[in-house]
Amino acid sequence: MPKLWDETIEAHRRTVHDAVLDAAATLVAERGPLAVTMSQIAAAAGIGRATLYKYFPDVQAVLVAWHDREVAGHLHRLAAARDEAEDPGQRLEAVLYAYGLIHHDRARRHRHVPAEPGILVPGDEHVARTQRHIGDLLRDLLTDASQAGQVRDDIAPGELADYCRYSLQAAADLPSEDAVRRLVTLILAGLRPEPRA
Amino acid sequence: MPKLWDETIEAHRRTVHDAVLDAAATLVAERGPLAVTMSQIAAAAGIGRATLYKYFPDVQAVLVAWHDREVAGHLHRLAAARDEAEDPGQRLEAVLYAYGLIHHDRARRHRHVPAEPGILVPGDEHVARTQRHIGDLLRDLLTDASQAGQVRDDIAPGELADYCRYSLQAAADLPSEDAVRRLVTLILAGLRPEPRA
Repeated sequence: MPKLWDETIEAHRRTVHDAVLDAAATLVAERGPLAVTMSQIAAAAGIGRATLYKYFPDVQAVLVAWHDREVAGHLHRLAAARDEAEDPGQRLEAVLYAYGLIHHDRARRHRHVPAEPGILVPGDEHVARTQRHIGDLLRDLLTDASQAGQVRDDIAPGELADYCRYSLQAAADLPSEDAVRRLVTLILAGLRPEPRA
Repeated sequence: MPKLWDETIEAHRRTVHDAVLDAAATLVAERGPLAVTMSQIAAAAGIGRATLYKYFPDVQAVLVAWHDREVAGHLHRLAAARDEAEDPGQRLEAVLYAYGLIHHDRARRHRHVPAEPGILVPGDEHVARTQRHIGDLLRDLLTDASQAGQVRDDIAPGELADYCRYSLQAAADLPSEDAVRRLVTLILAGLRPEPRA
């Protein structure tokens, strides 16, 4: 039964992989990314140091993999929020609120993992590309809402997406989901079409 | 002449200190904060490794000192921008634009040092306090502008300050000073008082 065996191996690898990412995220939250070592990650994940090195060459690589897993989860949540509404303005608002809640929750779980961990890995094209996916999702929503007259058209959708992406990170510091809702109100007020002179 | 001698020693210490911070910032920009070692910093600053350890115990401490020096410079620039105008709304706009330019410039010089390096040093009260100074400056301006009827009063000035502080970080990704100006336009539109129903 080589196929079943392969599946067992693969499931085991996936379990170890996920345990390593969870352990690293917890350690980084406690100590900051500069203070975490491969030995600590192995110990916290319950595996040997040599085994860890079969999965990842260094701490940066672990954090990049953790980041990938997080972003994939975020994109899934944001696409679900987007698809709950039909109206472009409502889709935009739903996605902004969902992304604000992601930052709000993340800050409570992983306080010291940067919102955009690409900053820890200069020049990594893979990380840069992954981070762009969320910006692209926002830009497409803003383009639709702008064409529907619900968002200003005097500033390019890409710049509006940058504004949304960064301002939503403020949700990490906010005390409640109501405050996240107020933040979305502010952002939407910024995006509103200017009254014609 | 013990006094003069003391001054010479102090000037020398200051020169070494500044050279270490410059070297560390350059290395972090090239390699990311996780990949920088004390040996590399010493070599880049042109001093011995043992000398470096007389100044700083580890890389985190170097980055915290670098952060302090940066924030002090930023506060100086923002206070100068604030004091060029009298009107609360103009003061706010001048400070937002100045802070946007700081992020825009910083991104070109130090791409991989986080805008808020406190993230690298969990639980460091000193870093957290330093970062709060800029938020406090923004909050005071927003309070004045709100009292003058130039900024919305339905959301607390502290939350408005968070919104400004984070959204201005988008300036790091923007291509030009004109784009920074457009970002400030967006932020101010978000802050405008809501029309009374």
